[in-house]
Amino acid sequence: MRMWRRAIVGLVAVLLSGSAALAQIDSLPSWNEGAAKKSITDFVARVTTQGSDFVPVPERIAVFDNDGTLWTEQPIYFQAAFAFDRIRALAPNHPEWKDRQPYKGLIEGDVKAALSAGKKGLLEVLAVTHAGMTTDAYAQTVSDWTHGATHPRFKRPYIELVFQPMIELMRYLRTNDFKTFIVSGGGVEFMRVFAERVYGIPPEQVVGSSGVVKFLRAPDGRISLIKEAKLEFIDDHDGKPVGINRFIGRRPILAFGNSDGDQAMLQYTAAGSGPRFLGLVHHTDAEREYAYDRQSRVGTLDKALDEARERGWTIVDMKRDWNVVFPHERLGIQPAK
Amino acid sequence: MRMWRRAIVGLVAVLLSGSAALAQIDSLPSWNEGAAKKSITDFVARVTTQGSDFVPVPERIAVFDNDGTLWTEQPIYFQAAFAFDRIRALAPNHPEWKDRQPYKGLIEGDVKAALSAGKKGLLEVLAVTHAGMTTDAYAQTVSDWTHGATHPRFKRPYIELVFQPMIELMRYLRTNDFKTFIVSGGGVEFMRVFAERVYGIPPEQVVGSSGVVKFLRAPDGRISLIKEAKLEFIDDHDGKPVGINRFIGRRPILAFGNSDGDQAMLQYTAAGSGPRFLGLVHHTDAEREYAYDRQSRVGTLDKALDEARERGWTIVDMKRDWNVVFPHERLGIQPAK
Repeated sequence: MRMWRRAIVGLVAVLLSGSAALAQIDSLPSWNEGAAKKSITDFVARVTTQGSDFVPVPERIAVFDNDGTLWTEQPIYFQAAFAFDRIRALAPNHPEWKDRQPYKGLIEGDVKAALSAGKKGLLEVLAVTHAGMTTDAYAQTVSDWTHGATHPRFKRPYIELVFQPMIELMRYLRTNDFKTFIVSGGGVEFMRVFAERVYGIPPEQVVGSSGVVKFLRAPDGRISLIKEAKLEFIDDHDGKPVGINRFIGRRPILAFGNSDGDQAMLQYTAAGSGPRFLGLVHHTDAEREYAYDRQSRVGTLDKALDEARERGWTIVDMKRDWNVVFPHERLGIQPAK
Repeated sequence: MRMWRRAIVGLVAVLLSGSAALAQIDSLPSWNEGAAKKSITDFVARVTTQGSDFVPVPERIAVFDNDGTLWTEQPIYFQAAFAFDRIRALAPNHPEWKDRQPYKGLIEGDVKAALSAGKKGLLEVLAVTHAGMTTDAYAQTVSDWTHGATHPRFKRPYIELVFQPMIELMRYLRTNDFKTFIVSGGGVEFMRVFAERVYGIPPEQVVGSSGVVKFLRAPDGRISLIKEAKLEFIDDHDGKPVGINRFIGRRPILAFGNSDGDQAMLQYTAAGSGPRFLGLVHHTDAEREYAYDRQSRVGTLDKALDEARERGWTIVDMKRDWNVVFPHERLGIQPAK
């Protein structure tokens, strides 16, 4: 028995020294050495080390915006691209769309003309593409789209246009017993289709905007959930802290966004007591991705940028701080022609 | 190196045989041997063993109603007891309540008179006790109440009136890599205060009814979330599958309830493909807890009981199937006099 115990102690020692060696491996290889990366690793070290800044595991909640923070959002939000692609796919069954905006414009690829139909037109598109079907049927449609549709500039499936450094960051946080959540203005049922596969985030950790869903019990006893053409919750701007409270019920200690739509979430996170990490992705790389901030209609970053500078939040300069943007660069795969 | 490898292989074998021995320990000691217990352990064995019924870990979602399923709900829902206690605590600051129902009745302990104020009166009580304050202040009030208030019959804090067999069941499921959720008609912010401490269920895995919450940015920059006196979502009856879809985004494979309010959740769970477990707690023990079903106004179990019998769902007969109801029986602690 003694001998066994000694063997175990010895083995444990070997395993521990092995894990110490593992700790030396860079968990964030796509991040260049610099202030942004250091602010992340310093924060994680602080909250995971016994001491006054230690945070118990259940409270290690980290929230991430999606569009522009975890994946590209230009030239239009990818969910809008999905909706427009759906309109084109459904057009053959709707001859009446040929002469009506916003359908005509979308079918002919003239988005500007489509937008002339205004907010009412866009809500109509949303209703046609996101409602009047079961939640299962909708999820299948989104799944098919993620496998088929490609981005106009990068000629790759949209789900390949996720940010490799952010995927590494979320994995690094999870390794340090954080629970990672998406908190996005995007549709919750849209994101849940791919969030687990692409980001390692399960459906129950995705918070987003939603439409009304009704429970339906057919006369034959069949059960289904039907998506209705009515918005229920907008998880953007001041809605983000509300969504965090509703879905997570615990104030995060780390929040990452990229636009003014994330400002309230960052403020709410910052307002908690104890150590906090607030981060913004600043799109500064027109060559590898896009460069935009205050003037952009998609992902406007203006007031949140001012506040981040004032309060010393971490501003990630995509061009300077990331040596890789998309996973395919890391894999050395050439973009499809 | 060879020697080390052999030592490791040997040690792993010892550890594995140890865990096999552990597996023999009864994880459900408060459950009597019988059909109900067997249906649970058989189901868990089926879905966790490689084979046609195997369910991958991320899909092992288990949902539990709270009132009457995880804790007692008689003589009134505990959240109603909280609200009534709050009215009495706030009464000294509201002299105008002395002559007005439902306040007068609640203050004087005449619930029947209070109920004469009807639904409007009850909503008023809900507004006074659950709104017009920050989410943090509300949580503090609930927390204080769980430590102070006691049940009229059992003379114990309400949070001690949880069902020991259900706590064992949830722990057993988590040991088998299930993720356990509460899906209750109760207020989500009410339950989150104690769910982690009492059930081991973190706030982000509690789904419930909710009121509108508003994000407030004070002129001095202070941030808070304010609970408003407006219902937003009723997580009961047909609302339960809707709540599951909204908060969890994945169909459970196991659902446990105790009343007709849980029927839609059970039906929705049952309607998925693959192995399913559906359970009902039947309150049959007037001596140790309460005995009620079809005629009870609180926790009516009528149509769901018929459906459970028809479809062969597991019906837990509290009197027959549980050798212990509350944790204090297991600990051998006598109820306070």
